[in-house]
Amino acid sequence: MLDRIDTSLAALIARRVPGYSLEAPFYTSEEVFAADMEAVFETTWLFVGVEPDVPEPGDVMTVDIGRNSILIVRDDDMNVRAYHNVCRHRGARLVLEEKATVGNLVCRYHSWTYNLDGDLIHAEHMGEGFDRSCHGLKPVHIRSLEGLIFICLADEPPADFDAMADVMGPYLAPHNLRDTRIAYQHDLIEPGNWKLTMENNRECYHCGANHPELTVPLFAYGFGFAPEELDEVERAQAERYGCMVNDSHGEWEAAGVPSACVEHLDDMVTGYRTERLPLDGAGESHTMDTKAACRKRLGTMPSDKMGALHFWTQPNSWHHFMGDHAVVFSVIPLDAHRSLLRTKWLVHKDAVEGVDYDLDNLIGVWMATNQQDSDLVGYCQQGAMSAAYQPGPYSPHTEMLVEKFCNWYIQRMKAHFTPGRAGVDAPRAA
Amino acid sequence: MLDRIDTSLAALIARRVPGYSLEAPFYTSEEVFAADMEAVFETTWLFVGVEPDVPEPGDVMTVDIGRNSILIVRDDDMNVRAYHNVCRHRGARLVLEEKATVGNLVCRYHSWTYNLDGDLIHAEHMGEGFDRSCHGLKPVHIRSLEGLIFICLADEPPADFDAMADVMGPYLAPHNLRDTRIAYQHDLIEPGNWKLTMENNRECYHCGANHPELTVPLFAYGFGFAPEELDEVERAQAERYGCMVNDSHGEWEAAGVPSACVEHLDDMVTGYRTERLPLDGAGESHTMDTKAACRKRLGTMPSDKMGALHFWTQPNSWHHFMGDHAVVFSVIPLDAHRSLLRTKWLVHKDAVEGVDYDLDNLIGVWMATNQQDSDLVGYCQQGAMSAAYQPGPYSPHTEMLVEKFCNWYIQRMKAHFTPGRAGVDAPRAA
Amino acid sequence: MLDRIDTSLAALIARRVPGYSLEAPFYTSEEVFAADMEAVFETTWLFVGVEPDVPEPGDVMTVDIGRNSILIVRDDDMNVRAYHNVCRHRGARLVLEEKATVGNLVCRYHSWTYNLDGDLIHAEHMGEGFDRSCHGLKPVHIRSLEGLIFICLADEPPADFDAMADVMGPYLAPHNLRDTRIAYQHDLIEPGNWKLTMENNRECYHCGANHPELTVPLFAYGFGFAPEELDEVERAQAERYGCMVNDSHGEWEAAGVPSACVEHLDDMVTGYRTERLPLDGAGESHTMDTKAACRKRLGTMPSDKMGALHFWTQPNSWHHFMGDHAVVFSVIPLDAHRSLLRTKWLVHKDAVEGVDYDLDNLIGVWMATNQQDSDLVGYCQQGAMSAAYQPGPYSPHTEMLVEKFCNWYIQRMKAHFTPGRAGVDAPRAA
Repeated sequence: MLDRIDTSLAALIARRVPGYSLEAPFYTSEEVFAADMEAVFETTWLFVGVEPDVPEPGDVMTVDIGRNSILIVRDDDMNVRAYHNVCRHRGARLVLEEKATVGNLVCRYHSWTYNLDGDLIHAEHMGEGFDRSCHGLKPVHIRSLEGLIFICLADEPPADFDAMADVMGPYLAPHNLRDTRIAYQHDLIEPGNWKLTMENNRECYHCGANHPELTVPLFAYGFGFAPEELDEVERAQAERYGCMVNDSHGEWEAAGVPSACVEHLDDMVTGYRTERLPLDGAGESHTMDTKAACRKRLGTMPSDKMGALHFWTQPNSWHHFMGDHAVVFSVIPLDAHRSLLRTKWLVHKDAVEGVDYDLDNLIGVWMATNQQDSDLVGYCQQGAMSAAYQPGPYSPHTEMLVEKFCNWYIQRMKAHFTPGRAGVDAPRAA
Repeated sequence: MLDRIDTSLAALIARRVPGYSLEAPFYTSEEVFAADMEAVFETTWLFVGVEPDVPEPGDVMTVDIGRNSILIVRDDDMNVRAYHNVCRHRGARLVLEEKATVGNLVCRYHSWTYNLDGDLIHAEHMGEGFDRSCHGLKPVHIRSLEGLIFICLADEPPADFDAMADVMGPYLAPHNLRDTRIAYQHDLIEPGNWKLTMENNRECYHCGANHPELTVPLFAYGFGFAPEELDEVERAQAERYGCMVNDSHGEWEAAGVPSACVEHLDDMVTGYRTERLPLDGAGESHTMDTKAACRKRLGTMPSDKMGALHFWTQPNSWHHFMGDHAVVFSVIPLDAHRSLLRTKWLVHKDAVEGVDYDLDNLIGVWMATNQQDSDLVGYCQQGAMSAAYQPGPYSPHTEMLVEKFCNWYIQRMKAHFTPGRAGVDAPRAA
Repeated sequence: MLDRIDTSLAALIARRVPGYSLEAPFYTSEEVFAADMEAVFETTWLFVGVEPDVPEPGDVMTVDIGRNSILIVRDDDMNVRAYHNVCRHRGARLVLEEKATVGNLVCRYHSWTYNLDGDLIHAEHMGEGFDRSCHGLKPVHIRSLEGLIFICLADEPPADFDAMADVMGPYLAPHNLRDTRIAYQHDLIEPGNWKLTMENNRECYHCGANHPELTVPLFAYGFGFAPEELDEVERAQAERYGCMVNDSHGEWEAAGVPSACVEHLDDMVTGYRTERLPLDGAGESHTMDTKAACRKRLGTMPSDKMGALHFWTQPNSWHHFMGDHAVVFSVIPLDAHRSLLRTKWLVHKDAVEGVDYDLDNLIGVWMATNQQDSDLVGYCQQGAMSAAYQPGPYSPHTEMLVEKFCNWYIQRMKAHFTPGRAGVDAPRAA
C-alpha cells in the first residue's frame, strides 16, 4: 500500500493540504521523527524550564532533547548558562541527575574538571603538548524571557526571539517569575507523537467532552465556536463571555497589566501567541473553586481577579499565569510514538505549602487535564497507525490554531529541507 | 555473510526449494514481515471471531490486524458489519476495548458520532460547507460462514470464499455455532513468526513427544506416518485407526453429517481443508477422558460420539468441532518474532458453567497443548536467528500439509509481488 | 547534521584519527554493530569459557554470540567440541539451558537425535531417500589454551592462535586451570557498546577515582602515568613500584614461573598481552586484605605471593590468575547499546566453600569493580549519543592500550571490508 505512493519527506511536505490534519507518516514514522528533531528541535528556540530551576550559583539542571543532553547552570555572577553535557575527553555524560549543585563540573570517569564558565581547568596525564583551552565544554545558546528559559541548539539561533521578548516582557513582568519557586513538577510520558500533543493543546473543541475539571475555570467559548449551531442558551452564554473579555481587558490594561491578544503563530520562526483571558466563577485561578490557590500574590499583580495570561510558543510550550500561581508546560519528543510533557507549578518564593496553599488544590485541575489529554493523544496515535487513516478536516471555527501549528511546522520543514540542501530527499517515511 | 547473498524478497521467493522449510529471513526479517502483512494479511480472508462474540445489536468487537484496528458490530437488523476503527476527523481510535456495547459509535475526542451503518450523523463546529456524507466510517468486507466470522481488508476480496462456503456450510451447520456462546477465551503471545505457528499446526509429527494431553483423544496416525518404520504393534494400531475412519465416516454420513476429507490448501486463494476424524477412547471430545465436556449437545448433532470435525483455513485459523463443544483458533501476527494465538471455546448457549460443564475439563487439553506448541515455536524462532540455520527437509509422510502451507504462502507472495507491480524489489530482508 | 557528513562505514573507518576515541556511530549505530559482529565476532577467536564449565562427558554449555547459539560439549573421549545449536530438520534450538548434561543431543521438536560427535543417528518418518549423513550438526572451531576455551565462527580461523598458545602455555600452565572448578559466575549487562567495555578495561587512568576496592591490591602505577605531574610522594611510590616489578619478575622467573610482559595487542589478528604484576600489601590476591582468598593453592604455584598474571585478548577477554584463584572475563555484545560481561571465579577443584574460602571475600573486589565499570561505560554510551560528542584525545601515558585496542579494531574492519569485497559500502551508520 504505502509503497505505491511516494512517502519521501519531500513528497509528504509538498502534498500537505491546508485545513486538514497531517498524513500518517508525520505522526508514525521514525524517519520523519529524526527529520523533526533536526529541522525543528535542533534549529528553533525551545522552552526548557524556569530560572527558579537553578536559583543559586552552582545549581545545575539537565534536560535531554533527543540525543542531546544539555546542562543549564547558574554561574557565580548569577547568569544562567547552558552547555552540552558531554566530557571532551572520552565523551562521558558529566551530570547524570536532573538537578544537582556543584562547585565545578567534574567528570566521574577520569576527573577532567570544568569551571562554571565551561573552561577545562584540570586534566591529568595528558602530556606536554596538550592544550586545555581547546577542550572546554561546548556552549548552547540560552535566553531568559522574564525567567522563562529558552535554549537553541543551532549555531545561529533565530533572531526574532528579540521581537517576541520585546512584546512579551510587559505581559510577563507583573508576575515576576524570578521571584517564584517550583511548588511541584510532574513528568508525563504521553503515548503519541509530539505534534499530536501540540495539536491537542491548540484547540478547546475537545474540552467540553473531556475536561470536566478544566472547564470549571476555563470558558471553552474563548477558543471558538460555530455561531450558527448555538441554541438560545448557548448564544446568551457566548455573548456574556464576549462582554466579559471586553470589560476585563479594559480594566486590566488600565491597571497597567497588558491583556490584548497578540498572535504570531505561523508568521515568525519564533512563533507565539498570548492573551489574558477571564475565568469563570470567582475568576481568580485554575482551581476547582476558581479561587486563588495561593495566598501570596505573584509579583506586582494588582488584584486576585486577573484571569489567566495564556502564552503559547512554537514548537513546544504553553503557559498559564494567574494572580496567585503559574503553570508552565514543555513538550519534549522522545520518539515518533512518545512525548514527554513536563509541567511545573510556580508560586511566590515565600509561599509555604500547607500554610499559604494546599498542594492538591494547586495542581488538581492540570493533573487531571494532562492525563485526559494524554489519553486523547494516545487514541490519535493508534488511529494514525491504521492503513485506513487519512487526514481529516479541521473545524474552521475551533481548530484554526491547530492549522497554524501545522502551517508553522511545514514551513520549518520546508526551510530546512529545501532543494539544494543536502538531505532533502534522504529521509523516507515507511 | 548474509550480505554476500541476495536477500531481496524477490530472490528469496524465487529461491524457495519445495520440500524444505523456508529461508531464515522469512521468519526473522521485519521487512519480510511487513511484506507478509501487505501481501497476505491485507489481501486474503482472515478468521477473526464468531457471531457469538457480538450476540446482540450494538455489540462491538475490535480486532487488530497489524497496524489496522477493525471494529465488528452487530447492527439493529442483526447483521454483522465491519469498519475501520478510525474517526474520520482527527483519526482517533473509536472503540478502545476488545468488547463493548454501544448505541452509536461516538468518538471520545470531539464527539463525532456514527450510527451502526457507519454514517456520520453528528459533528459540531464544522461550518456550512462541510458534507457529513463524505465522512462515514470506512467499511471492511465481512462474511459469516455458519457463524465463523471472516474479514478481508482488500478492496476486492478473493471471490473463491463462496466456493469454500458452499462446501463447508453442510459440514458446519449441524453444530449450529450461532446458537453457542463463548465459554472461555485465551490469548497467548507465541514467541515466533506467524508462519512457524501455522507450520506447527499443520503436522502432528511432533505430537507424540510433546502433547501428552492432546494425544489422549487424538490419533497421531491420522496425520501420517512412514509405514516401513512401524513395528508390529504400531502397524496393528494404524490399521485399527484406518478401519475406524472408514466405519465412522460411513456411519456419520448416513446420519446426514458430512465427514469426508476435502482439501484445497494450496490450490485456492481461500485455501482450506476439512475432515471429520474419530477420537480415541470414548470418542466424544477433546478432553482428558475423551468424553463430552458439556451435557448440552450442539445444534442437530445426532449423537455424542461424532468425533471431531477439523477445519483449517489459510493463512490463519484452525478449528475443532465436536458434538458437545467447539474450539476455534486464530493467529494474528504481531511482528516478525511474535504472534497472537487467540483460542475460543464454544458451548451451547444454554449450557451453564458448573452445571452442564466444568470449565477446567473443557479447556484443559488445549490450554496445555497451546503452551507446548508455543514453546516449540519459540525454539524454532531462536534457531532461525542463527547464521547456521538452513532450510531442512520436510517429512514426505508427516509434513505434507506444512509443505502445502509454504506453497500457498509463496504463491500469495508471488501473486502480490509480481514484476511490473511497484514494490517487488523494494523489501530487503536483513 | 549527521546526514551532511559521510557516515558510510568505509568513510568512518578511513577517517579514524590515531590517538583519539572513535566517532560516535562506532558506539551507537546498529548498522556498525552488525558490521562488528560480522567483521570481528564471526572471524576471530573468542574467549567463551573454561574447561571446568564442562568437566564430565556429556556436559554441555551453550553460549550465544549475536544471532548464533553455540553448544560446547565434552565428548566420551574427554575432548571439548563445539557445534551450532540448531537442529538440521526444522531449525529448532537443541539445548535451551546454559548448562546441561546429556547422553545424546535430542531435539525436543521431532526427536531428531545427534550423538556427541554431531552425527544424526535417529530421525523418524523421513522416507527412504533420506541421507542422515548429510544432516549432522554443523561444527564450530574450538581450542583450549590450558583450559581457557576459545571458539571461532569463521570457516578458516586465524592461524596465529598457535603463536599465542606457544607463548601463553608456559605462563598459564603453573595455574593448572583444568584442575579448577567454577566457584561463582556473574552475568552483568553493561549499558554500553562492547567497545566501550573493552576500552574501559584497557586503562587504569580511571581506577583511582572509581575503584576503591580494586586499588587496594592493584597498583594504578602499573598502567602508566605522566612522570612530570607526580609530586614527591607519588614519585617515591612509583619508584617503589618499579623496583617491586623488577624484583618480583626476577624471583618468579627463577622459580620457573614466566612473568615478563609480552604484548601483541595490535600486531596480530589474535591480539593479546600478558604480564605477571606484583600486588600491594600482602601481595597474594585480588582481595580486600590482599591475602589469598582460598587455602588450596592452584596447580604448581610455588608460593602464595605470586602477584597476578594478567592476560588480555582481542576482542573480548581479560583474566587475572593468582596463586589461590583466577578470575576470567568475557564480553559478548548484545546490541549497539548493551554488552554482556560474564565473570567466572575459579578455585582449586578440591576447595570447599566455607572451609577453604569465603565466597564473599573471593568475589568482593571484582563484583564491586565490575559494577563501577558498568556505570562508567553507561555514562560514555549516553555521551556518545549526543550530537555534541566528538572524539577526544587519549592520554599518551595512561591510554596507550586503549589506542591499541582501537587500532586492532580498525585493522579488523579494514581487513574485512576492503574495496572489492561485497558489502564494503553497504552499511550506513545513522
